[in-house]
Amino acid sequence: MNFGFLIFPDAEELDFIGPWEMIAMWSKFAHGPEHRLIVAASPDKVVCAKGLSVNPHATFNTCPALDYLLVPGGQGTRTEVNNARLIDFVSDQAINCKAVLSVCTGAFILHRAGLLYGRRATTHWNSLQRLRDLGDVEVVEERIVRDGIIWTAAGVSAGIDLALAFIANEAGEKAAAIAQFSAEYYPAQVNYGDLHKSEQAPEYIKNHGH
Amino acid sequence: MNFGFLIFPDAEELDFIGPWEMIAMWSKFAHGPEHRLIVAASPDKVVCAKGLSVNPHATFNTCPALDYLLVPGGQGTRTEVNNARLIDFVSDQAINCKAVLSVCTGAFILHRAGLLYGRRATTHWNSLQRLRDLGDVEVVEERIVRDGIIWTAAGVSAGIDLALAFIANEAGEKAAAIAQFSAEYYPAQVNYGDLHKSEQAPEYIKNHGH
Repeated sequence: MNFGFLIFPDAEELDFIGPWEMIAMWSKFAHGPEHRLIVAASPDKVVCAKGLSVNPHATFNTCPALDYLLVPGGQGTRTEVNNARLIDFVSDQAINCKAVLSVCTGAFILHRAGLLYGRRATTHWNSLQRLRDLGDVEVVEERIVRDGIIWTAAGVSAGIDLALAFIANEAGEKAAAIAQFSAEYYPAQVNYGDLHKSEQAPEYIKNHGH
Repeated sequence: MNFGFLIFPDAEELDFIGPWEMIAMWSKFAHGPEHRLIVAASPDKVVCAKGLSVNPHATFNTCPALDYLLVPGGQGTRTEVNNARLIDFVSDQAINCKAVLSVCTGAFILHRAGLLYGRRATTHWNSLQRLRDLGDVEVVEERIVRDGIIWTAAGVSAGIDLALAFIANEAGEKAAAIAQFSAEYYPAQVNYGDLHKSEQAPEYIKNHGH
């Protein structure tokens, strides 16, 4: 099994590395996908949104057929939605994928690749209205959303929760438990300040039981 | 202000990139440290524990004096505790740091650099006994631990919580709230399976209110 993680200039670091870590724990300790690849347009280093510099494992030309594809968000998505090679890579791979996942504004890449038409989906709180305005997606204010083989997550850190829910769905709760325990993902449940109660906060945060 | 993130071969990805993202949000939206640097022994690419390939921004020779230093864990720590150049880098920088932080088994690097003597500290659940056996550290089973200017976190994902608590301490709750909201860090609060109730689970997980 091949699990691909797409990156591009100004991709948001935690969007793809949160899931990368969880999927890797699944691979290492609970028989998850044997191959995990960071995929980019070219073999050159990619500088992410917050300055991390990453070397891809594969390019659009060398990437094998993927069983799973994850698309992160970040400021770079504003440009990449107009990158025909990248959008073609996503839509071509999606045909044979068992699942396609996005985190944060990666949803806009999935949309442009034709994968969100008529589906329920979500994105970062600050882009919910922008996704709604596209008109052909049912945007919901949840942390993780599954609609068939398309999974979308809210902003940045939501990719970690997405990955665990995805593992549970694909391989069972025990596999997700092993990944969660290995990465010691039992968050502190602290809300700093009161931004989670602000006008802009998505519904699931306002209802968050912290 | 300079915030350095040490890396080395087989450093665990999420250990440093979780905090990297939160500190970056602090920088970008709430006047956090202007400079964030990934620091390694040489300018060559570094392959992390789960296969991510990262290019450092600075080396032990070119790194400026740091105000803050974070040390991740990962399988590589088993080797790096015996790397005199790396340990010297940590202990030399620590002299002028306002705070030194570790995530997961990064605690063993801090210990070797002389920073944990007589202090309260923690590490990944699977290494708690190994840290205790060193004899001169008070090992506690909490998710994040502060003792003076030394901060230690439990395994892998705990670095995210560490970073937010650290920001709140350094810059106030509002700055931490902005970083948390920007990264949409309102975790799903799901425990898969029952490993969190197992014999090996640290105390704070057993008492976790999920």
